[in-house]
Amino acid sequence: MSVPPDQAAFVYIGAFVEELARSGVRHACIAPGSRSTPLALTIARHPSLRVWMHLDERSAAYFALGMARALQEPVALLCTSGTATANFLPAVVEARSAGVPLLVLTSDRPPELRDVGAAQTIDQNRLFGTHAKWFVEVALPDTTTELLRYVRTLAGRAVATARAEAPGPVHLNFPFREPLVPVAMEPPAGMSPAEEVAWNGRPGGEPWVSVGDGRTMPDETIVRRLARQLREAKRPVLFCGPQTDSKLAAPLAMLACVLRAPLLVDPLSQVRWGRHARSALIDRYDAALHHEPTAAALEPDLVMRMGSAPTSKSLLQYIQRHAMSRHVVVDASRWPDPTLLAAEVVRSDPRLLVTALLEQLEQLEQLESEGSAPSANPAWLERWRRVNAAAAAALVEYGDSVGEPFEGCALSEIAAAVPAGGTLFASSSMPVRDLDAFASGDERPIRVLANRGANGIDGVLSTALGVAAATSETSPLVLVLGDLAFIHDMNGLIAAKLHELDATIVVINNDGGGIFSFLPQSRDAEHFEQLFGTPHGLTFRSAAEFHGASYQLVSSHSGLRKVVAAGVDAGGLHIIELRTDRMRNVELHREARDAVFRALEARAGIGAGAE
Amino acid sequence: MSVPPDQAAFVYIGAFVEELARSGVRHACIAPGSRSTPLALTIARHPSLRVWMHLDERSAAYFALGMARALQEPVALLCTSGTATANFLPAVVEARSAGVPLLVLTSDRPPELRDVGAAQTIDQNRLFGTHAKWFVEVALPDTTTELLRYVRTLAGRAVATARAEAPGPVHLNFPFREPLVPVAMEPPAGMSPAEEVAWNGRPGGEPWVSVGDGRTMPDETIVRRLARQLREAKRPVLFCGPQTDSKLAAPLAMLACVLRAPLLVDPLSQVRWGRHARSALIDRYDAALHHEPTAAALEPDLVMRMGSAPTSKSLLQYIQRHAMSRHVVVDASRWPDPTLLAAEVVRSDPRLLVTALLEQLEQLEQLESEGSAPSANPAWLERWRRVNAAAAAALVEYGDSVGEPFEGCALSEIAAAVPAGGTLFASSSMPVRDLDAFASGDERPIRVLANRGANGIDGVLSTALGVAAATSETSPLVLVLGDLAFIHDMNGLIAAKLHELDATIVVINNDGGGIFSFLPQSRDAEHFEQLFGTPHGLTFRSAAEFHGASYQLVSSHSGLRKVVAAGVDAGGLHIIELRTDRMRNVELHREARDAVFRALEARAGIGAGAE
Repeated sequence: MSVPPDQAAFVYIGAFVEELARSGVRHACIAPGSRSTPLALTIARHPSLRVWMHLDERSAAYFALGMARALQEPVALLCTSGTATANFLPAVVEARSAGVPLLVLTSDRPPELRDVGAAQTIDQNRLFGTHAKWFVEVALPDTTTELLRYVRTLAGRAVATARAEAPGPVHLNFPFREPLVPVAMEPPAGMSPAEEVAWNGRPGGEPWVSVGDGRTMPDETIVRRLARQLREAKRPVLFCGPQTDSKLAAPLAMLACVLRAPLLVDPLSQVRWGRHARSALIDRYDAALHHEPTAAALEPDLVMRMGSAPTSKSLLQYIQRHAMSRHVVVDASRWPDPTLLAAEVVRSDPRLLVTALLEQLEQLEQLESEGSAPSANPAWLERWRRVNAAAAAALVEYGDSVGEPFEGCALSEIAAAVPAGGTLFASSSMPVRDLDAFASGDERPIRVLANRGANGIDGVLSTALGVAAATSETSPLVLVLGDLAFIHDMNGLIAAKLHELDATIVVINNDGGGIFSFLPQSRDAEHFEQLFGTPHGLTFRSAAEFHGASYQLVSSHSGLRKVVAAGVDAGGLHIIELRTDRMRNVELHREARDAVFRALEARAGIGAGAE
Repeated sequence: MSVPPDQAAFVYIGAFVEELARSGVRHACIAPGSRSTPLALTIARHPSLRVWMHLDERSAAYFALGMARALQEPVALLCTSGTATANFLPAVVEARSAGVPLLVLTSDRPPELRDVGAAQTIDQNRLFGTHAKWFVEVALPDTTTELLRYVRTLAGRAVATARAEAPGPVHLNFPFREPLVPVAMEPPAGMSPAEEVAWNGRPGGEPWVSVGDGRTMPDETIVRRLARQLREAKRPVLFCGPQTDSKLAAPLAMLACVLRAPLLVDPLSQVRWGRHARSALIDRYDAALHHEPTAAALEPDLVMRMGSAPTSKSLLQYIQRHAMSRHVVVDASRWPDPTLLAAEVVRSDPRLLVTALLEQLEQLEQLESEGSAPSANPAWLERWRRVNAAAAAALVEYGDSVGEPFEGCALSEIAAAVPAGGTLFASSSMPVRDLDAFASGDERPIRVLANRGANGIDGVLSTALGVAAATSETSPLVLVLGDLAFIHDMNGLIAAKLHELDATIVVINNDGGGIFSFLPQSRDAEHFEQLFGTPHGLTFRSAAEFHGASYQLVSSHSGLRKVVAAGVDAGGLHIIELRTDRMRNVELHREARDAVFRALEARAGIGAGAE
């Protein structure tokens, strides 16, 4: 007996959505459309799923990405058929690159209406190509026991796959026949218990299938060898790049202390800020390693890196300069080594490895009678700490002296304004680089996020607003981005108004693409402004007005800390604009760097100091 | 001898860009970025290529799509690596669906920097999947004779492939090594003539390879058979759907006259308006065929369709209702038949077939002594014309009587305001449907365009501005779109300011998704407004201000004609907002339809009239 499509969808999509909820999904970002009606209505009717409507699918996808990034749990994303789905691609790419779990649900016409000129019908099969972690062309709704088991399994499996190690976007493409509004259907009489459980789900709200998560862990021989190598290294350097596991900081910082190894902490590492052992943390490497003699003198013999590749270019160059050191890269599945210098890649979840290394080191200490300390000379860490302190002092002093708006100091002021427990979201391009170079770590537990999977400047507002939606009740959000990133995703602000989100947004407006002024392209006098500078002459007062945000133009970076803190305190949506000059910005960066150079040279031997 | 990357790129990319120009490319839409520098700088330096900068790649792609659609020539589109490229997908999908030639150039890191965590590096290989007509992973720049022949051939072949029948987007992914700023390189001494021509290009500005375009044409037996079938049909119906060949109108309109067959002309067919034979044109089918008795009575025996599937739902239902008629679909490569009723698909360029049919019919007339006229009873066409006239009169009368803003009449007024030679761009969703239903054709040669490949409401502003950029000096542009489409692509307006474009834009603001009120979803009282209506409460005065456009709020559709005409006359960028009510809009559409029904019923027998 054939079941009408609207009734079949009621049962089948009902089972799917119920299993999403039982598998832990709590949020769905939805853009309006007709073909997606069975999913949209079923999600909206579900008591434990919260719906976030969006008018632009690109923004919707980035918003979902932000929520999933903040929650570290899969967030569902839904749209209708056609180009709507194509607008998801940028965020899907970022989700795959950055390891963010997304559940991408697209709606499609059934097979008989594909490729025959039906409206809003495009080829959605594997639309996101290699950028989807898993793709399923879902079966048409039906109410057989087998299909109900299938769709319940599919939901649980999709959530688990999105969340599993190396999390990422899972894409399910749902074909639907008209009519599209689901109509309730009574369960058939006389079902067997097995049929009944397929129809109603397992008793007591248990998911159809629970997936036991696993994490990669190297075997003990590898841990033992690595522990010994670290212990024997004379000049070990640890680096933690962008990553989101908040529980990595404590054991990793402890490991650095035990090893007496400098731990270089990327602003996105979740280690630069927070209440963990801070004595081995180095956060001014970007400025210090620009200084050639210092970078040359601080020659490591072992470099162990985890998280993504460094944000800092001078750190990357430091790694490349010391090509003959032993380079160890820790990652469960990716290959974050653009230097191609890794002699060893350890396949492991970083936290599991670090914890295992700490245990191993403790055992080694107890076992070995002759001497309990690691080999690294205490002077090695001390040299790094002195370099770090000198660079820090020089940058603070320079910041106090500069009498005009400076983007570097702006990032330092903004970071300082984020309250403990708050989240700072930094745009790719200059903000995250300036954050790296100018913002010093401290004990405030703050979370620092960015779209650093693919490093795009698109979708920044939407991603940050998604973070705010997921966490702002407990963790106020401060976003800093440039004018081009702001313009790129300006429509994303509509979500802030629609969903009454709290966010304090700082736009550093240098009227174009500031990063290019630092690149060799800037020497092409004829075409630089046209192709790279791209001035637009826009200011954002009326954009703020359009989106119902408060607006404040600040004239200097030193005013930022107070204004940002006030925005955070007040709640609501605030747009704060700081205008800077692209050409002067390059000069001021150079001045800051020179100040660091002078400090390092004044305390000659700081880097090269005797061991 | 290995050539430095910057010098190799100078020669290699120089050859590529020169061949683009020699192959007829005139425009390049570019978004700023670093990895794309070799292409961007070379294009900017080329004297016969015009650069259009954009800050958002999605808008850039739609803008290029609009230019290419208007020019019917490939337009180049360039961006850097990473998510920037992913933002091209929506427009690439539309270009493929709608048959618009695009030359999509993406920049990438070289093989050694892929999938190793290098910044802004994603898998761009076949990024657009089946939506790219052709994909090439381009070789790294080099200066060997073979590679220069390769890249010159590649340019000519890519342009030709994009332009060839069933035009579409071609995607070339260019890897570049640093340094990225091309540096001039002297040709090596002592080249052979064959080497010299590879280095410098063919003499006299000739392209490296010219591609002779072909168009599909059925063989004569098919044409002869079809001509006979059309001639013998008693109740033939011709339909021309959305298509952009401006030269199809004259022969097709002539064919309809010769056959005494009603020619139903979609607003996007380029046949509804213009100075061709108009006596067989039917433009009120949408309203008339809603009327069941009329749709039943006007039973065709042969339906020949060309162009894309109809915009009108009532026409689609009319075709489906008469499933036992013979359905012939003409298309060179696509399969535009969502009804699945086609008994014959004629693989042909429509214009070539229509011209061949006219010749064949003339021959048949001369050959056959017994009777020169086609079989179709003159009464058949006359019935259609009476139905059309009755529906037209009823709609005009209704429009004159309605005392509040009505979206249907708004489209009729806007269409009437477009000057001869002008272009009207209508958004998907309601505007193009209301245009179909309410705007009557006349002798003004106007072009009517829409993104009706995949029927998305995304990228509408950018596409229309691309059309304006390509043609507004000769053909003023009027755009009509809804509030959701406006919001979706609001950032696209930046291009209007940057490039000082002329466009008159009418936003019909019904505070949400108007089309859904016509669908069964509207009966879900609990979730309709949240999921489908999606009210946002926005009005567009401050958006206009932000983008430097004039703004006018009009209170009735009857004022639109004058305001639009004034905007066109004045030049510059104008945003005209008409506010309507979504619920009332459904009622007013129903009233208009009822007025047509009454007119058709009053003249009983109009549809069913005796033959």
